[in-house]
Amino acid sequence: MDFKATLQQKTADIEAILKSYLPEETGLQKTVIEAMNYSILVGGKRLRPMLMQETYRLFGGTGKVVEPFMTALEMIHTYSLVHDDLPAMDNDEYRRGKKTTHAVYGETMGILAGDGLLNYAFEVASGAFDLELSPRTAKAMQILATKAGIYGMIGGQVADIESEHKVVGLDTIEFIHKNKTAALIESAMTIGAVLAGASDADIAKVHTIATDVGFAFQIQDDILDVTSTTEELGKPVGSDAKNEKSTYVSLKGLAQSKADVEFYSNRALNTLASLPCKNAFLEELIRMLICRSK
Amino acid sequence: MDFKATLQQKTADIEAILKSYLPEETGLQKTVIEAMNYSILVGGKRLRPMLMQETYRLFGGTGKVVEPFMTALEMIHTYSLVHDDLPAMDNDEYRRGKKTTHAVYGETMGILAGDGLLNYAFEVASGAFDLELSPRTAKAMQILATKAGIYGMIGGQVADIESEHKVVGLDTIEFIHKNKTAALIESAMTIGAVLAGASDADIAKVHTIATDVGFAFQIQDDILDVTSTTEELGKPVGSDAKNEKSTYVSLKGLAQSKADVEFYSNRALNTLASLPCKNAFLEELIRMLICRSK
Repeated sequence: MDFKATLQQKTADIEAILKSYLPEETGLQKTVIEAMNYSILVGGKRLRPMLMQETYRLFGGTGKVVEPFMTALEMIHTYSLVHDDLPAMDNDEYRRGKKTTHAVYGETMGILAGDGLLNYAFEVASGAFDLELSPRTAKAMQILATKAGIYGMIGGQVADIESEHKVVGLDTIEFIHKNKTAALIESAMTIGAVLAGASDADIAKVHTIATDVGFAFQIQDDILDVTSTTEELGKPVGSDAKNEKSTYVSLKGLAQSKADVEFYSNRALNTLASLPCKNAFLEELIRMLICRSK
Repeated sequence: MDFKATLQQKTADIEAILKSYLPEETGLQKTVIEAMNYSILVGGKRLRPMLMQETYRLFGGTGKVVEPFMTALEMIHTYSLVHDDLPAMDNDEYRRGKKTTHAVYGETMGILAGDGLLNYAFEVASGAFDLELSPRTAKAMQILATKAGIYGMIGGQVADIESEHKVVGLDTIEFIHKNKTAALIESAMTIGAVLAGASDADIAKVHTIATDVGFAFQIQDDILDVTSTTEELGKPVGSDAKNEKSTYVSLKGLAQSKADVEFYSNRALNTLASLPCKNAFLEELIRMLICRSK
């Protein structure tokens, strides 16, 4: 397998799925739809839908029912970035070198585009019941909602904001990483497993893999913030120190942090290897996510 | 039937249902949960859950499956107010004499509490599948999502914002009223009918009743803005003129607007009377909503 070429092809396939669900830019609500579509199309690696689809395939899933959930999860991820970038939050004018949504459409439309995306995510996901009305679809809907909310991503976001400009402990950093970052990875992988009909025991294993992957990914992010150059990272480095944020690295030290990434990565890959089915691409994808040198 | 006493009792019953679904104020995400619960508990007439429950009862519904949807709809209505009040939107410090959410918890938490409520609405609603996994529940979920989004409430909200400080036509005003206001009334009543197992023909009738009720309600609101005193209305009058907003009244005149409220109200009540089943309280409730003198 040429991993890079396969990754490109799969990303293109996911882009096509996402586009097929985007609302038409028409009607008196046209501006908000333009802002929503801009937010989605401005870019992103589509990792969450990809992890969902590959976990679905790992357990033998072949249907279309996963597609509305892939789209919904990417919309939820995107709305969280749009609201994160708002003046009252991080106040970012640029993300990955492109103008943020509120920088293009104004603050009011930034709020409404985020609301629109979050709501549309559930509109798209609830369309899955037309494809398959089953306990699996219902469970997938529940996971989608829970992992994005106050007991998932929003919970982590709140804890993160309240931790700025003060010293917090490791418990808090772990809570933030596990909720703000890992929750949507857990959402992606467990929904894939659930929709494909994996056993409860295997779904539980997939959940621990996703937690480890999300957690290792985020520790690695903290590491790169102190070890990379801006050029390598493609975004400003040292931003955590500048914002006086406690990070995993500031609390555990660089060497221990690197050892921990190694530990969680290995555990995730070992658990993946213990599953009764294989997906070589998914394994490579996880390796890429957590072993990023830059 | 003592309508007023019954209304009070039913409102108290709905308050108890809402409270039973509120998240516990604990954990590192405590602040956002406090802000969410504050937003819900600060008040409101609970008209949308009441219309849902009464339409459910009209068609013989007796189960609990309607309760998560009642709660979800009130959460969606509430999040829309929380975001509406934000500095980047209407910038309101007070609503019904109480401090708005961002005025108490700050702008950042105002945004996140709104996001949290919208997301939690779908979390609560998706719990309905544990009570009943059926095409009715799936359909109710789809209606809940669609009527709140860009083809419902958010669509109306966007058109409303873009109509400020300029002259717009009657088409635009009708679009705003039917989406910003009527959409959640349609959501309430059609979900009630769908969950109770009403026929497609009756669901369609319920939908037209809800549209007429929502539309008449909003025209009446425009009328009261020019004919009431602040004391009678409980909120500032003449706000539309002050904001240079075109309204139904400014476009059609006061006499015609009153005649139109009469027309849509009568049509709603006649359609209600044509249904094969009766709910005297629902009839009175609709009368109260659209025949408000103040």
